[in-house]
Amino acid sequence: MTDILHYNEIKKIIPLNKSLIPIIEEGFINLSKNKTVTPPIMRLDIEEFYGEADVKAAYIKGLDSFAIKIAVGYFNNPSKGLPSSGGLMVLLNSETGVIKAILLDQGYLTDVRTAIAGAIASKYLSNLDIENVGIIGSGMQAQLQLESLMMVRNPKTVYVWARDQAKADKYIKTMKMKINVNFINSKNIQELCKNCQILITTTPSDKPLIKNDWVKKGTHITAMGSDAEHKNEIDPLIIRNCDSYVPDKQSQTIILGELHHAIKNGLINKDKKFNELGEIINNPTLGRKSNDDITICDLTGTGVQDTAIARHTYNLFISNKI
Amino acid sequence: MTDILHYNEIKKIIPLNKSLIPIIEEGFINLSKNKTVTPPIMRLDIEEFYGEADVKAAYIKGLDSFAIKIAVGYFNNPSKGLPSSGGLMVLLNSETGVIKAILLDQGYLTDVRTAIAGAIASKYLSNLDIENVGIIGSGMQAQLQLESLMMVRNPKTVYVWARDQAKADKYIKTMKMKINVNFINSKNIQELCKNCQILITTTPSDKPLIKNDWVKKGTHITAMGSDAEHKNEIDPLIIRNCDSYVPDKQSQTIILGELHHAIKNGLINKDKKFNELGEIINNPTLGRKSNDDITICDLTGTGVQDTAIARHTYNLFISNKI
Repeated sequence: MTDILHYNEIKKIIPLNKSLIPIIEEGFINLSKNKTVTPPIMRLDIEEFYGEADVKAAYIKGLDSFAIKIAVGYFNNPSKGLPSSGGLMVLLNSETGVIKAILLDQGYLTDVRTAIAGAIASKYLSNLDIENVGIIGSGMQAQLQLESLMMVRNPKTVYVWARDQAKADKYIKTMKMKINVNFINSKNIQELCKNCQILITTTPSDKPLIKNDWVKKGTHITAMGSDAEHKNEIDPLIIRNCDSYVPDKQSQTIILGELHHAIKNGLINKDKKFNELGEIINNPTLGRKSNDDITICDLTGTGVQDTAIARHTYNLFISNKI
Repeated sequence: MTDILHYNEIKKIIPLNKSLIPIIEEGFINLSKNKTVTPPIMRLDIEEFYGEADVKAAYIKGLDSFAIKIAVGYFNNPSKGLPSSGGLMVLLNSETGVIKAILLDQGYLTDVRTAIAGAIASKYLSNLDIENVGIIGSGMQAQLQLESLMMVRNPKTVYVWARDQAKADKYIKTMKMKINVNFINSKNIQELCKNCQILITTTPSDKPLIKNDWVKKGTHITAMGSDAEHKNEIDPLIIRNCDSYVPDKQSQTIILGELHHAIKNGLINKDKKFNELGEIINNPTLGRKSNDDITICDLTGTGVQDTAIARHTYNLFISNKI
């Protein structure tokens, strides 16, 4: 019998908190150890309605279940009073293929596992004693990325930049209810870069927002907005000039992520091999080597994160039921 | 609110019958008119357990919903008392991406739409006045293909070949309860080819079962077993020598189907363009030109069939509810 988990139930079982960090870390470690079967992302564009559906899947060898996820993004939905993202996850028995559960999470678990990946990136790559954080963008991930960063670092001030300054104000108002730090609505990104030691980009931009010259020594950048060929948040020069570039999954970032633009511009050889996030988690000395290093984590979103969080959700659901 | 349709309900709403032929035909026509967005199949192999999960999807322009299907095949399942195939379909709103329904069909709708595609192939490509049909294989599709062939042709005798003759006997016993024709357990495929005007292959064979020399003038072959790179039921020479080779979707049969082996063996130029099944449905004169023609339909299974049957199932479900 297939269990059906509904949105409200899932939100109750899986609040965004620190306990999820080791769950997602394990997924990345398995990915880097080639203990996974992860086919390329399936993508279906519904151009007439400015919509897309993506399917991700990952089987982690040795685990009794795996997930296939459908993620939906419809960018005109907010004008119709609907959320722009949605979807579900399907959990299958690894040994028999029987469908154990359907998680009708409407994209919530994707939001959560993406936010946790950001926390993991900063945990392993940023300096410990950071003062200020810069958030580029003001959407759902701008909120969740900051919330999860607070699990691993203690910034004093958060600089926020959004294309629409009113949205940045609204973001600050919302986040002040949740997090006790100073907030500054930053009028330009250059100023934000000057003041912050961690930069988190969360936009669907298709032109670089952060210029190479603006990035100071010691900065860590988590770029999580680029999950499609045309998206690009970071000046490709930064990828070439930084001390440590870390993809979540390099076979994906050469197609979808920031790396892809650096390769296309001839700044990086397409065969160059970088340490993936899972390798850094497993051996943190492969990441930041000095306080002055500039580090970048390029997050495109991987099926192992989905399988990790879907399994965890289901396990908690079952143990609550018993 | 997402509707959840369960297996028994779906079987009740969608019995295998003639009314499904125009539904699936319309899907093929849309496919051939490039009115669809159909990404390549996603495939996940779980080698340790001799299992696989495939994802197919198709959006048909102008329709208010589209389906994404997860199909599961675990070939050791029968030894555990479980069916070897399973899966589900997800129906999404084309305009908003909202998930309208989940069809927990356990692979039933795939079985049905595959069988109906076989009926469509014989309807448009075989001679009208056939006497005998040869069924190669004795599994679920061997049953369903014959049942749906009876919707479009009236054979007197059905020759059955299976690697295990006891299974052919069991097949005949089962089918005699459903269909009033003569059955012959054919000891060899050459004899079967000699006697039959329609041949339907339904096996997971990885070596050709039907030799070129055995195929008589006027024969129509529906090959539906080959849905993976290594599968191959038909001598590639037949593909070269036949009068009309018809793929369900050529961009798929060059990778998965019988055509792929003919190309690999240098018998067919990889750039040669064939009329797809949807083009034949739309203009039957493109298919069989004389009673002596040898025709082949290569069915690898397409997302448009899934979207067509998922939409039809959901529409019937809703109209029953009202």
